[in-house]
Amino acid sequence: MNNFDFYNPVKIIFGKGKIADIPKHIPNNSKILVTYGGGSIKKNGVLKQVQESLKEHTFIEFGGIEPNPAYETLMQAVEIVKNNNIDFLLAVGGGSVIDGTKFIAAAANYEGECAYEICSKGIPVNNAIPLGTVLTLPATGSEMNANSVVTRKETKEKFAFYSPLIMPKFSILDPETTYSLPKHQIANGVVDAFIHVLEQYLTYPTNSPIQDNFAEGILRTLISEGTKAYNNEKPNYETRANYMWAATMALNGLISCGVITDWSTHKIGHELTALHGLDHAVTLAIVLPGVLNEVKDLRKVKLLQYARNVWNIEGNEEDSINKAIEKTEKFFGDLGINTYLNHYSIDESTIDTIYNRFVERGDKYIGLAGDITPESVSKILSSRL
Amino acid sequence: MNNFDFYNPVKIIFGKGKIADIPKHIPNNSKILVTYGGGSIKKNGVLKQVQESLKEHTFIEFGGIEPNPAYETLMQAVEIVKNNNIDFLLAVGGGSVIDGTKFIAAAANYEGECAYEICSKGIPVNNAIPLGTVLTLPATGSEMNANSVVTRKETKEKFAFYSPLIMPKFSILDPETTYSLPKHQIANGVVDAFIHVLEQYLTYPTNSPIQDNFAEGILRTLISEGTKAYNNEKPNYETRANYMWAATMALNGLISCGVITDWSTHKIGHELTALHGLDHAVTLAIVLPGVLNEVKDLRKVKLLQYARNVWNIEGNEEDSINKAIEKTEKFFGDLGINTYLNHYSIDESTIDTIYNRFVERGDKYIGLAGDITPESVSKILSSRL
Repeated sequence: MNNFDFYNPVKIIFGKGKIADIPKHIPNNSKILVTYGGGSIKKNGVLKQVQESLKEHTFIEFGGIEPNPAYETLMQAVEIVKNNNIDFLLAVGGGSVIDGTKFIAAAANYEGECAYEICSKGIPVNNAIPLGTVLTLPATGSEMNANSVVTRKETKEKFAFYSPLIMPKFSILDPETTYSLPKHQIANGVVDAFIHVLEQYLTYPTNSPIQDNFAEGILRTLISEGTKAYNNEKPNYETRANYMWAATMALNGLISCGVITDWSTHKIGHELTALHGLDHAVTLAIVLPGVLNEVKDLRKVKLLQYARNVWNIEGNEEDSINKAIEKTEKFFGDLGINTYLNHYSIDESTIDTIYNRFVERGDKYIGLAGDITPESVSKILSSRL
Repeated sequence: MNNFDFYNPVKIIFGKGKIADIPKHIPNNSKILVTYGGGSIKKNGVLKQVQESLKEHTFIEFGGIEPNPAYETLMQAVEIVKNNNIDFLLAVGGGSVIDGTKFIAAAANYEGECAYEICSKGIPVNNAIPLGTVLTLPATGSEMNANSVVTRKETKEKFAFYSPLIMPKFSILDPETTYSLPKHQIANGVVDAFIHVLEQYLTYPTNSPIQDNFAEGILRTLISEGTKAYNNEKPNYETRANYMWAATMALNGLISCGVITDWSTHKIGHELTALHGLDHAVTLAIVLPGVLNEVKDLRKVKLLQYARNVWNIEGNEEDSINKAIEKTEKFFGDLGINTYLNHYSIDESTIDTIYNRFVERGDKYIGLAGDITPESVSKILSSRL
């Protein structure tokens, strides 16, 4: 096991009816900005529950944060924060709303010229407005981590930033808030969480059985409960609860303690979203099988462990690994996600564009595992046409 | 899954050489009390590393905190805290030193007549001195939780108390600090951690696959790595690291989220320690097989799951469950722990004493699973003579 630091002070309040607990966790006399996305929380009653819980508080609402939240949109919220002395943010939505709200929290006090530098140049966040979340789409894990990904439309850039200061003070996880999700969003959420785990697990062995067992447990749960959540005609509370908790545990820092992580699938996927507007999870489902085939020999040990422990595949090593990669891709397909670029009308011309972006940034290796170069990216994308 | 709140803001700093990081995590100009136990940290160099790391700080040392830390000893430390305006505590040791230091933290500002009331009457802690820990004996999980157990010698009482205020600000987990542990302490640590997991896992199903998978992963790791740590002639870093991380994860609140826990084995064990001075882990190893046999029918579902997923036992249900209980007891035996009372010169006269203690306290059920009464305690102890 490698040395590590682990710190996750996000308070999780989990279960049905828990939105009513919000006031216990926000300081008295706060001036709150409630942020949300396209308005589904108005239809499904979640916003009403939030408004009801905040009836003793002062709050303003800011809706319209889009999937892959845009710097341009978020800066409008930053203006509202500044003009109204907002001192608490409450994000109500999925990963995009939460990531966007984290950016608002950090950008409100940013003193440089363009706050997107927090993402594009990795300028450290020195202070941030405290925030809480009400999660409605289990997927990104943003409700219990220090990460945020923000897109800049103008320059077609999509970058992550990180700061312990943007970790939510609390997150409400009520599985019932997911009942009105369209099927494709559940599919996206399951795939996103699944690939979060794989990017932390499917690299190189570090003799870390706790982390491996946890990762494998999350993967098995996502396969079983994620599939049920997708296929159930009526939402089932237990299934939604398990899918929700699995997605949170997939990216809260726990399973990456002391192990070698990758993130090349995410980095390549971000380019596809930035250039072509594809759903985040769809880009991951396209890219991952290519990455795994590319590193099949190098990452043989963990791929075999994955085949045995997650997919219960027995037999010779090479076949088992191939079957595990096939089963992974089929799992995405069974969730209704097509895993090839041509399905999304993306042709080979995008390959050089993405290759050049990595080369121009001086990224010798994409991801942290040290085995994916810009040249591998070209090969990976070629195999996914 | 049941509703739950989860909050664990303890910062974990894990790995070799990490004691040197202590000053980064203690506020400048703190007046520190460094607490420790019988002095093994003087012999193995850990105290020297701590002193070296604190050379820019003001600190006093308080040694002599015994296993099953005594109220009477800890109140001496409370006097030192008061007389020297101590504002940070650093516990260097195992669960007893950490639990004791948590009590010092809470008792220093206690305004009632007898600070043991925090334990015996469950008087809530309103404030506590901040503390950090350097863990040297993986076992109790105290380094990453809000619990403490303190014994009062005068009245032969042993009670736990709980407060988020006594959670360590940070804990240093350097596996190398465990290298000089005697074998029986490793055995005790492994068994203690193992039974922590069982008390949270082996009760009644709540459809919580994430928690079950995590619990089973910790159990399998403790069986494999705990046995190696016990048997290795020379300490192996990876083995110690895995055992250490497993013990911390066994009782940091994560696997008990949304599930039904028990703790009757601990409660009965505490009585054996309070009355007869047995090692905590030894009492658990004695009591647990009795508890499992007592609830064999009621907890059939989880016992079978335990047999299948932790011990890989196939075959008919009843046989599998019996074998799993046997294997559990054999695991303790292989770690050199005798699991019967007569080995410790304890005879049946203790049974009525313990029965009466539970009855006098009005404990209708011992533990939280609702299936162990004072009458069951008598049966359990009778089966362990």
